[in-house]
Amino acid sequence: MGLRLAPIKKAAVIGGGVIGAGWVARLATGGIDVAVHDPAPETQRRVEAVLANAARAAAKLTSAPQPISGAVTFAASIGEAAAGSDLIVEAVPERLDIKQQVYAKAEEAAPDDALIASSTSGIVPTKLQAQLSRPERLLVAHPFNPVYLMPLVEVVGGQSTAPEAIERAMSLFRDLGMHPLHVRIEIDAFIADRLMEAAWREALWLVHDGVATTAEIDDAIRFGFGLRWAQMGMFETYRTAGGEGGLRQFLKQFGPCLQWPWTKLTDVPELTDALIDTIAAQSDAQSGGYTLDELERIRDDNLVGILQALKANDWGAGKTLAEHERRLMNAQAAEADPADLSQPIRTFSRRVPPDWADYNNHMTESRYLECFAQATDALLRMIGVDGDYVASGGSYFTVETHIRHLAEVAAGEPVHATTQVLHAAGKTLRLFHQLFHDGGTLLATGEHMLIHVDLQTRRASAPPVAIGERAAKLAAAHADLPLPDGAGRAIGKLR
Amino acid sequence: MGLRLAPIKKAAVIGGGVIGAGWVARLATGGIDVAVHDPAPETQRRVEAVLANAARAAAKLTSAPQPISGAVTFAASIGEAAAGSDLIVEAVPERLDIKQQVYAKAEEAAPDDALIASSTSGIVPTKLQAQLSRPERLLVAHPFNPVYLMPLVEVVGGQSTAPEAIERAMSLFRDLGMHPLHVRIEIDAFIADRLMEAAWREALWLVHDGVATTAEIDDAIRFGFGLRWAQMGMFETYRTAGGEGGLRQFLKQFGPCLQWPWTKLTDVPELTDALIDTIAAQSDAQSGGYTLDELERIRDDNLVGILQALKANDWGAGKTLAEHERRLMNAQAAEADPADLSQPIRTFSRRVPPDWADYNNHMTESRYLECFAQATDALLRMIGVDGDYVASGGSYFTVETHIRHLAEVAAGEPVHATTQVLHAAGKTLRLFHQLFHDGGTLLATGEHMLIHVDLQTRRASAPPVAIGERAAKLAAAHADLPLPDGAGRAIGKLR
Repeated sequence: MGLRLAPIKKAAVIGGGVIGAGWVARLATGGIDVAVHDPAPETQRRVEAVLANAARAAAKLTSAPQPISGAVTFAASIGEAAAGSDLIVEAVPERLDIKQQVYAKAEEAAPDDALIASSTSGIVPTKLQAQLSRPERLLVAHPFNPVYLMPLVEVVGGQSTAPEAIERAMSLFRDLGMHPLHVRIEIDAFIADRLMEAAWREALWLVHDGVATTAEIDDAIRFGFGLRWAQMGMFETYRTAGGEGGLRQFLKQFGPCLQWPWTKLTDVPELTDALIDTIAAQSDAQSGGYTLDELERIRDDNLVGILQALKANDWGAGKTLAEHERRLMNAQAAEADPADLSQPIRTFSRRVPPDWADYNNHMTESRYLECFAQATDALLRMIGVDGDYVASGGSYFTVETHIRHLAEVAAGEPVHATTQVLHAAGKTLRLFHQLFHDGGTLLATGEHMLIHVDLQTRRASAPPVAIGERAAKLAAAHADLPLPDGAGRAIGKLR
Repeated sequence: MGLRLAPIKKAAVIGGGVIGAGWVARLATGGIDVAVHDPAPETQRRVEAVLANAARAAAKLTSAPQPISGAVTFAASIGEAAAGSDLIVEAVPERLDIKQQVYAKAEEAAPDDALIASSTSGIVPTKLQAQLSRPERLLVAHPFNPVYLMPLVEVVGGQSTAPEAIERAMSLFRDLGMHPLHVRIEIDAFIADRLMEAAWREALWLVHDGVATTAEIDDAIRFGFGLRWAQMGMFETYRTAGGEGGLRQFLKQFGPCLQWPWTKLTDVPELTDALIDTIAAQSDAQSGGYTLDELERIRDDNLVGILQALKANDWGAGKTLAEHERRLMNAQAAEADPADLSQPIRTFSRRVPPDWADYNNHMTESRYLECFAQATDALLRMIGVDGDYVASGGSYFTVETHIRHLAEVAAGEPVHATTQVLHAAGKTLRLFHQLFHDGGTLLATGEHMLIHVDLQTRRASAPPVAIGERAAKLAAAHADLPLPDGAGRAIGKLR
């Protein structure tokens, strides 16, 4: 599968910390080769650990077809990494001098039109680009940890940044499944970190004053407004709570509260040793029961679940995911070879998501039918029963199903289904699916009788000629295949 | 079903705005009768609209058995509402004098030991309770909108509040499926609103300075850190990002950033008419395409999805939901009558969740099997195959399934399943489920062959005598029932 979305082939990532490694995973998953440079000896181990987490999360997140992952290599110098790269991602410590040294070395080796994107959380791009020979190609692309799952990337240009560079970056990040937000005015810390810092200072005061522990503050967030902010921000949330008058009414009602003595915002708590000791000890008490690996996986599983939940509602970050999946599916459809119709057709493949396992530690029975239902949908699309056709008022309904569960399969395993058309005539379509582990084991068979229906009357009706002909063509192509084991069978005699 | 969890029978809610109405829904859903008082003429309409939204959300949120909803009545006075109430919830505007008038009237009519809970977002309970004759029973119970879905409630006592009152309130809110957070030190605005206010002021500055629009700020939240804060708060999030050294390392690395000129926190923006106009217009542009009803339902659907996603990971607010469901299921099991074994056994009931519908606008085929799988699980629990038994190393696996899809069913409709034991002998168990709309229509039948397995060898094995006997007893009780239509059938002849 040569599926590609991103218009570039190679990127360099300078800096292999949490953010740099996250960028490596996001870029490589998007099919881009990545050369990493970081002199720290543990770089390769850290990057590979993040790549493993990213692969695990991606398998859970989506069943959409994926590009072949880009190759990840470790370069001995900035120049070696930058050579031939269309994008240079800088993710080194937050010191202007260090960053400018990176840009100077990168510019020596990189193509003239390579984008240079800084991951800085706070330094404005006009300062970053001051010493570049081609400053128009530098911008800030501020991502959020974990970069391979979090959709947001703040894109900020400086005084010398070319609008075309902003456009290229926005387009690239969309191709990587992200939600680029163009920060139009460059200010220190951009948008998200200003909000986070404000809450963070307040949290430090609460700990400092002994009002609440780190665990209590986290609970006040995750059992409360954090749930709201995962899907609407604060303005839309308040609008929704404010009644028919929109935000004007809300501000009228709650605006005066801003003058109340509610916050300690007029000062920044000093990070004394005593305060650091308090916070570190409270955090140990709160989260020390988990290893860092465990916390990362818990976080990723939760983010995956939240993104999927929002996808089901086609909203916010879930909409970003849905749109990316559509792009991937369209790209795959556009390049698909015509199927070999003389054999059962491969109609479904994915890794078993972790939440498809049940208390017996294997894929739960209803998910077998979900695999078969997706295989049926793929077969139906082949004969022209797609979203447009359903919208026009016709569809097929399954009226009978016979499943044989032949072998177990665990979460994370790769599976695929093939489909044989047993019969197609008039209103009926009879399919036989086989679900395999990619290693070859037959896991289950599913036999399904479908009837074409008119979605207005909800009654059986003849399909349009073109659809009937395509179905008949598949049935004819499969007519000489042997009848699969289990076809036409019942569970067995009774009494 | 007389299922009850909450120890009280009647509550009064004074104030029928967004928060008051949300409390009414949370309390009534928990099986508590609620008397509402609010002189505003639109109170009943508003409360009933919120009750409808709450019922809709609850049907999507959980399939756990629910108490019969409490009766909601509208009282002509505070005294009428408070009479006989074990809990008085005050949700009137944020003015100390108004609140104290409410408490005075409530105390005249309410039982001596009724709790009085203020929904204030910011006034400390010591001020609220100053004029009460029994101040020890007043506390703050600060909820979050929508109260019927958001788990968090901050519980704050004043100088005169009895510890026993805090305990009673915490326990009651847990029984209502909430996550009570005891705010141990009373400060203005408690914990959550201090954090929210800090971010809110910063957001107002961003709009004031023209850096970002309300939509851009909301996107910076909901595509970014809002997703993180829905599951971990800020301390655990930073710990997870900070590496092996815990929060001490994180503070060492990022602590100095606090001194950067990143925020405008030293002042509060003045809410001039011009700023209000700007915010209101930007919010209209951002969200004006949705009606308020639509926004409320989008928000609720998203919260339901996020809570369910977190439940799948047994984490945070999802853990609260899972624990509440376990309490409800245990309560139901404790009061269940012995089943009438001479008839098929009712093993499953729920409303079809909206995300179970597919592109044909009816319950998708794999969810039929999910209904049957849950019915199978319920039947297995009846013969002793429960979580403990599975943990001990035995279980039943389904090896074959035959489904007849007989009628469609739409999202939101109530359905239930009955189960007939067709055969039970040795390692095998053969079940026949029928899925009905609660109105009586037979939607589908499912016939299932199960084999008892040893979970170590993953091979068929004889069940323990006790389990085999219970299965055989059910099969014997059902032996004289007529063979259900469709049992033993195959999809039909082939070729």
